[in-house]
Order: sequence, then C-alpha cells, then structure tokens
Amino acid sequence: MQTQKIILPEKEIPRQWYNIQADMPSPLQPPLHPFTQEPVSPDDLLPIFPMNLIEQEVSTERWIDIPEEILEKLMIWRPTPVHRASALEKYLQTPAKIYFKNEGASPAGSHKPNTAIAQAYYNKVAGTTRLTTETGAGQWGCALSLGCSLFGLECKVYMVRVSYEQKPYRRLMMKTWGGTCVSSPSRDTEFGRSVLAADPETSGSLGIAISEAVEDAVTSENTKYSLGSVLNHVMLHQTIVGLEVQKQFEMIGDYPDVIIGCVGGGSNFSGVSFPYVRDKIFGQKVQIIAVESTACPTLTRGPFAYDYGDTAAKTPLLPMYTLGHNFMPKPIHAGGLRYHGMAPLLSQLVLDQLIEPRAYNQLQAYEAGVIFARTEGMICAPETNHAIAAVIEEAKKAKEEGKQKTILFNLSGHGLLDLPGYDAFLDGELVEYELSENEIQHSLHDLDSFPRPVIK
Amino acid sequence: MQTQKIILPEKEIPRQWYNIQADMPSPLQPPLHPFTQEPVSPDDLLPIFPMNLIEQEVSTERWIDIPEEILEKLMIWRPTPVHRASALEKYLQTPAKIYFKNEGASPAGSHKPNTAIAQAYYNKVAGTTRLTTETGAGQWGCALSLGCSLFGLECKVYMVRVSYEQKPYRRLMMKTWGGTCVSSPSRDTEFGRSVLAADPETSGSLGIAISEAVEDAVTSENTKYSLGSVLNHVMLHQTIVGLEVQKQFEMIGDYPDVIIGCVGGGSNFSGVSFPYVRDKIFGQKVQIIAVESTACPTLTRGPFAYDYGDTAAKTPLLPMYTLGHNFMPKPIHAGGLRYHGMAPLLSQLVLDQLIEPRAYNQLQAYEAGVIFARTEGMICAPETNHAIAAVIEEAKKAKEEGKQKTILFNLSGHGLLDLPGYDAFLDGELVEYELSENEIQHSLHDLDSFPRPVIK
Repeated sequence: MQTQKIILPEKEIPRQWYNIQADMPSPLQPPLHPFTQEPVSPDDLLPIFPMNLIEQEVSTERWIDIPEEILEKLMIWRPTPVHRASALEKYLQTPAKIYFKNEGASPAGSHKPNTAIAQAYYNKVAGTTRLTTETGAGQWGCALSLGCSLFGLECKVYMVRVSYEQKPYRRLMMKTWGGTCVSSPSRDTEFGRSVLAADPETSGSLGIAISEAVEDAVTSENTKYSLGSVLNHVMLHQTIVGLEVQKQFEMIGDYPDVIIGCVGGGSNFSGVSFPYVRDKIFGQKVQIIAVESTACPTLTRGPFAYDYGDTAAKTPLLPMYTLGHNFMPKPIHAGGLRYHGMAPLLSQLVLDQLIEPRAYNQLQAYEAGVIFARTEGMICAPETNHAIAAVIEEAKKAKEEGKQKTILFNLSGHGLLDLPGYDAFLDGELVEYELSENEIQHSLHDLDSFPRPVIK
Repeated sequence: MQTQKIILPEKEIPRQWYNIQADMPSPLQPPLHPFTQEPVSPDDLLPIFPMNLIEQEVSTERWIDIPEEILEKLMIWRPTPVHRASALEKYLQTPAKIYFKNEGASPAGSHKPNTAIAQAYYNKVAGTTRLTTETGAGQWGCALSLGCSLFGLECKVYMVRVSYEQKPYRRLMMKTWGGTCVSSPSRDTEFGRSVLAADPETSGSLGIAISEAVEDAVTSENTKYSLGSVLNHVMLHQTIVGLEVQKQFEMIGDYPDVIIGCVGGGSNFSGVSFPYVRDKIFGQKVQIIAVESTACPTLTRGPFAYDYGDTAAKTPLLPMYTLGHNFMPKPIHAGGLRYHGMAPLLSQLVLDQLIEPRAYNQLQAYEAGVIFARTEGMICAPETNHAIAAVIEEAKKAKEEGKQKTILFNLSGHGLLDLPGYDAFLDGELVEYELSENEIQHSLHDLDSFPRPVIK
C-alpha cells in the first residue's frame, strides 16, 4: 500500500527559523516614515512593537533560534504532516505526484498560529501583558487569541463590523480562548467613537480596525500591537512550514519540481516557499508559484511601488507590489486574499523573478476545492482552493506533456467555518471577477506622490 | 523538552479490528424481532444491510482483517496522535500524567468516519450504489457523506428539521462532499408525507428521520441503510482507535491506569476502550470510565432491559441500558449524548462491571472544556467536554492522594462547529439538568411488556 503521509518525528522539528534577508540577491528596501518619507528607525516602531520583534524585523542573520517555550506550544500540532494526494492524482489521471503540507491541523485551523504563538511569547518576555490587533474575517484574531491564551496575555481584537455580524463563529472561538473581540468601529477608542459619530451605520473596514488597535496599544499600559502578515518577522516565523517540508522530502528522497501556495499578505506562501527560494538562489531548479485572486491581482497586475500597508494610511510606506491602499476588492469569499499590497520580502523576490505570480478567479478555485474535497476528503479554506486550482492546472500540464513531476502545495487552512461559499458555488450563485484596466488604474494614482523604490 | 505527541508510524496502523464478542465473560444476548419477539436472524436484516456487514454484526471471530481499500482511506488522517496534555497537568498541579487520543483530526472532525468509510466500502463491494441514513445534529450525516464520496456512492441524509434549520454548517459539509441532505420529515417518503400532512409545522425527530431513511432504503434500487452507532459492527470498526493507542503506549513504555471517554450511543468510547477491556478480562488492572450526561443518564440511572433502538419502535428489541424509547432528553448542546439507549456490547460490559459509568452535567462539562481550550489550545466538542470533566476530577484525586497515575481520554471530536454552546456557557446562560426520579421512571413503563434479558 502506498504511503499516504510523511510524518516528521517530533524530535526533528526545526530549531531555527530561516531568514531570507541573509540570502536575497537584492536587499530589501527600507520602509519609509509616513510623514518624513525617511527610512524608519527601529526606535520609531517601539510604541507598537517590543524591541525583540523589531530586532527580528531588521535582522539579516540567516538562522534565528526558536526558543524552547515557543517550540513546546507549536508542538501541540507541529510538525504537521505532508500528505500524498493519490486519490486526486488518480482522478486527474496525471503522471504527476501531488503532495500537500497540512497547515489546517492547528487548533485555529490555519497557519496563522505559527506566528501568533511566537509573537505572544516575545511580547511576554518583553513585559507586555496585553496585545491588540485587528481582524477581517477572523482567522488572525482567533490565532492571536489562542497564542495569548497559551502564554497568559490579554488579547483585544477589533473585528470589522460587517464580519463581526456575519461571521459569529470566529468571534466565538476568540471568546472561548479568552480573547475580547469587539465590533469595529467601537466605542472603546477615540477614533472608533469619531467614526461612529460621523456614521453610526458604517459597516467598518480593516483600515478603521487597524487604527483602533494601534490607538489602543499606544494609549494603554503594557500593551503592544500585533500583525498577522506582511512584516518580515511574520514571514520568518512561518518558515518553519517549509523547513519541515524540506526534511519530509529528504525522508522520501524526493524534491519538488513545483511549489504552490496562495497569497493574500503572503505569510503562508512565504512560510512554505522561502527555504526553497534559498535553494533556487543557490542554483536549484524549482518552479515557485504564488497564486492570488483575479479579484485582487496585486502581483499579476499591480506595480512595485512604495505604498501604505493599511487603508488608513498610518503605517510606514512599504516597498511592495500594490494595487494602491484605496483599492476596494470585490466581495470574494476568500477574505484572506483581499489585501491591496503584498509582503515586501515576497514582493522583492517576485521582482527578482525567483517567484512566479499567477491569478485564478473564485469559480476556478471552488471547482478545484470541490474536486479536492470529494477525492482527498478534506474541505479547504477558499484561499487554499486558489492554490489547488494551480495544482490541478500543473498536473494536467504534466499529463499533456507526459512528464513525471513532483508538485507540492500548502494547504493553508481548512474550510469548516467557510462553508457558505461552497454552498453558493454549488448552487451556481458565485460570479467571477476579472477587473478592467480602468478598475486597476483607478486606485494607483495615489502612489504618484510617494518615492519610487529601486527597480533594477 | 518533553515529548508532546506520540506518533504511530503509518506502517504500524492496525491491520485488524478487535471483536470483543470473542472474549466477553457473558455472551451478548440476541436482538429480538419487534413483532414475534423471537431472536432476529441474519436474513431478517438483509433488506436494510448488506450480508458482509451482517456477518460482522454476528461474528465471534476475535480479529477481523481490515481491507486495504479501507486502510488507504483511513490513512488520510490515521493513525491519529496521542497527545500529552502537559499544560493541563501544570494548570491542575497534578502528579498525574494526562494523555489524549485526537479523533478530532479526521476531515469530518470526529471519530465517526472510522465506521462511515468501512460501511461505504462494504456496501460498495456488495453492489450497493446508494446509502441512506438519518442524522440529528449532523455529525453522522457528514461522516457518511464523506465515506460515500471517497467510494463513489450516492448518499441521502434525512436530517431532523429543527437541526436542519438551526445548524446549516453541517448540511453544507454534506453537500460539499456530494451528499443529499433533506429536512425530515420530507416529501421524499410516504412516511414523511404522512407526518407533514398531520402536522405541517412539526420540528421532526430522530425517530421520524430513521423511519424515512429505512423506508427509502427498502423501496429504492441498490440502496441500503447505514447506522453510525449502537450496532456491533460499528463498535468493531471503531476499535482501531484503542488498538492504535495500545501501540502508542508501548512506544513510551507506559500503560494507562484510567481510560475515559464520553458515551451517547457508545461508539467512540467502545473504540478507545474495548482493546483495554480485553486486557482487563485477562487480569490487567485498569479503570475504564464511561461518561454520560446527567440529562440523559442511561447507564447510571436506567435499567438493563430489552428496548427498541429507535423512538419510532421499528428496530429489533436490543438488550441494553435504556431510559425507554420514549424518553425525551433535555435540550443540552451535546446532541451526541442525547440517546435513550446504549450499544448492547457496551451495556453488557457495564452490567459485568468491567466498565464504570459516571455522569456530569453540562456546566461541569463546559467548565472543563474551557480550561482545556485555554491550556491545551484545542476547542473540543461538547460531548468530549464531559470526558474532560471526568479527567479533571481524576487528576485532582491523584493530587489529593499524592499518586502518580496515567490517565488517557478520547478526544472524540473538535468543537469548531459547536461554538454557540461555549458562548452560552461563558455568558452564564446554560443550566444543569438533574432529573427527578419521576422523570426517569416516566418513560420506563413501556419496557414492562418486553421480554427481560438475563441478568446474572
């Protein structure tokens, strides 16, 4: 009988994260202060992040030790298995071997706790007793509530009002882990109150929620702010995913020809792929595909430019692919793919052609997700389904070309709390969104006034 | 660093199920035909079950081979890990070692697919192309939809109307796996139409849903009926859980002093415990505790008697602990524990004092579940929380007695689709149900007219 899973023994869990800043052919360009447009100094970030995380943010050390206290909590579910998708292969009649890393195995159901636990730990040792954050659909708020619960920190989550009302399950998860989740705009911050005064019926936005979480952090005692994607230290914490995968492929004496993941802010993709990008920098032949939504085609249709990380225009200017911080993505079910920008590290690697971007619409994604659920048994998050659409295309290509190929994708999360999207798809109610050139250009004008990053 | 999980290598997955009928000190007493009250013959069951499963139902062979085709599908998520709950131990300051088997790791989120996949396979080889079943809260309907999906069978699930309307997520899971889930009573069966004609506003019941599923099976082509608990072959399929646990404890050179699981119909508990009951029959010292709800105290307050397995009084009479087939349990969140009877195999072993029953109310259960979520990170099903309440009591006892003790419990399912119960508990809105003696006696009178099983 064929092996179905590659299980890494617990004692083989990686003890260091991989920092790709040590190996990038083009160094990362600095974030700029939103007012002075001068490079941001570590001290500028101290009101919202602890120094130990700021040090990780700017570090160029190749390997960074994972503290034992973090490893112990990660080992609640890590190492995660790599599965062979043999039933999917058979369904597609492809000569390709398809593998996937299962990050849906965490208690919160996605890769997010990999960094939430690390951030909670570093804050705790730095003397923080309370963390704030914002959340859209709720995945990140859940992960941080879990992380804070395991290290005894308080957690306050500002959840965009429309999601707060439409997605009660995720806020109930936060509550079960002891987190406090409020609808944003809230009456708990000055900014929230001012927004409510101006428009009591507002449905909220991620930009508003970020502003509330940051205001809370800078005005409350022993409180810091936490972010679930985009930043360098978040990508760093996620590399445990790809480092495990490398050890797992060593165990079976194989090496992936193609690595695929979905991208919103970039964290699950960076986690699985950066250790392989390193191999590629040093000469290994491997195709690395970042899959986004056609409804938010940051990498495939946006420019590489300096832009704000948030829609509220409060963060430093980051060098990245962006659709402009005022870009309003269509309401696709894959909430995690609706981000206007992309992690600077990942953006630079796309610019340097080490990573190849590709976009699928949500009909293609759900079609792939349903095939996967009915062959491999697992119901994936709508974000993950975009990666599976690319996997199926690559597997079909291998069939046409008659090529043996090893394909790996990252199953970034399960879809058990995202079932209404499947329902709408199966009932034929979903639409695809292909944006016109006008729609893309519309929100890019804002970028004209910012400095330009270096493009070789 | 302490080991957090005991991982059984895939090649060590058990190749045979354990049939406790071979070793029981008192043999199982026969099911009786509902009309003749004579022992049921295998042929009587043929209209609803295929012969290969009927043979398993009556087999007294100790070990029954698991077909490769079933193993391959089980290995999508099996073997499941045994976790050390060291953060819970620390929180309780107990000298006891606490371990749990994680059956929440399956794609449907519970132990139910262990038998759903086996039943789908055996039906397929027997020529069945379509299975019917009933479901209350929806766990079983999901598991069978998954099983049918993996073997290419059609699946029709009759879901009790009140759950169908209140718990949309589970029926969306069934739909995603290709199952057809209808609200019961439905217009698809004669019985359903008759119920609707008499009371169009009925909220339905498990009894009605069973009658619809059975009518559909016996009147449709190549269609059989499938049951997710109570029957001997279901318990058999679940023993893979305990057989894995035994191998896992061998790996660390330990043996549990106490084994704990929750019981509704008895399948997850039988699965984890029967291999240990066998050891106990052959002289091993081990305490085995079956935990039920005080709102449905079948084992702790019901008699051992012949009774119908269903509320519609259509099944054979089964020898079991029962509260009477007309018993109406209070609306606790742990829907899986609201069954009036108990698996005959498990009932006989309780009667023979090999298994010790115990009951907790839902406040105790949720309190335990919240402690577990905030220490171990995992949010469990409300059914599982009853087992955790017993674990915490046993761990506290070990502390008082200053005893080193090894406690194992079965985490039968995760609670990600059961969050409203946590919400109600945390808001102080849940009540405990302790039944009066009158409430217990009320539904027991029906049993007087049935034959009495042998009680030594």
